[in-house]
Amino acid sequence: MKLHSYWRSTTSYRVRIALNLKGLTYETVPVDLLSGAQRSPAYRALNPGAGVPTLELADGTVLTQSLAILDYLDHLVPEPPLLPADPLDRAHVQAAAHLVALDIHPVNNLRIINRLKTEHGVDNEAAKAWMLHWMAEGLAAFQQMLPANTRYCFGDAPMLADICLVAQLYNAHRWGLDLAPFARLLEIERDLLILPAFDAARPENQPDAP
Amino acid sequence: MKLHSYWRSTTSYRVRIALNLKGLTYETVPVDLLSGAQRSPAYRALNPGAGVPTLELADGTVLTQSLAILDYLDHLVPEPPLLPADPLDRAHVQAAAHLVALDIHPVNNLRIINRLKTEHGVDNEAAKAWMLHWMAEGLAAFQQMLPANTRYCFGDAPMLADICLVAQLYNAHRWGLDLAPFARLLEIERDLLILPAFDAARPENQPDAP
Repeated sequence: MKLHSYWRSTTSYRVRIALNLKGLTYETVPVDLLSGAQRSPAYRALNPGAGVPTLELADGTVLTQSLAILDYLDHLVPEPPLLPADPLDRAHVQAAAHLVALDIHPVNNLRIINRLKTEHGVDNEAAKAWMLHWMAEGLAAFQQMLPANTRYCFGDAPMLADICLVAQLYNAHRWGLDLAPFARLLEIERDLLILPAFDAARPENQPDAP
Repeated sequence: MKLHSYWRSTTSYRVRIALNLKGLTYETVPVDLLSGAQRSPAYRALNPGAGVPTLELADGTVLTQSLAILDYLDHLVPEPPLLPADPLDRAHVQAAAHLVALDIHPVNNLRIINRLKTEHGVDNEAAKAWMLHWMAEGLAAFQQMLPANTRYCFGDAPMLADICLVAQLYNAHRWGLDLAPFARLLEIERDLLILPAFDAARPENQPDAP
């Protein structure tokens, strides 16, 4: 498998964690978002949405959208599962994961921030405030959605919500979000990042990291 | 079941379609997004993310996030399925659905547009241009992701991608997007909206529509 990805992309980070948890090996194909490589005709032919990640299977099949890729990987290698078996438990884990993946991440995406700056006169300071606002609001809701006294987000095994959380917290640290209200999330993050599957997936451990 | 929702919310629209496809009856509990009802303490206790929809089951269990709710409904009532059984087919349908649900809708959400206006000096005209930009770009990618010669997005039965498409196209019509490049999508929309499950879910057919 080839993972077309960018080291700092949090959606790429999600897929790297899942590949590692499933014990799948892959080759990283760097897509330099800062130079606009995702908008090249060759890359758009793989991924019409011009985003990362894109997973290219050995037979050439191409998969896009991080959560859809995670669902595929969960079917390909069922253990360890990324979602619980019980339908209600599944829905709760997904709701928390989607709070990150639909409510926080999309509005802080690079293409969004670039457009705020180039088309709407938003300066660097205001763009940062924009990002921190949605992270603070979203992470507060995420934290409220967790059951009490679990090691990871929803129990003793890392699942989809943990994958999305760790990737989002990378961005929160990077942009200097005040994390004082999120002690619970930081404890979970600490326990997750010592797992080899999460540690190997960290942005700074990727071949295209500077 | 009670569906806490807003008639014009496209995420509420998705869940209404799925409930109808599954033959499930429900009571609509209107949440007036324009007056900020979603931010009331009572509603936030149900849904920490302060968004719609929220699905309240007969036993009081509360589910949030439209795609997580759809996954639950698909497990609760497996027929007709919202996703294909084959893992690769599932991933392709989800990738298209997620292009709408993660790349288009979140950045055009009411709370996002309100913040652009109140905090970043974006006027009504520029906010509309913002919305239309992401819709045009996203729908172009969505259209490219579809296989050729299918009745609905991925075959002869409506699935998750169709549900997300119809709801997004409602917004596209509402805001006056130039739909000339999307003839294929409009044909699919026409065929979907004549299905009773889709027709009954239309915003204008809801009890809180004016």
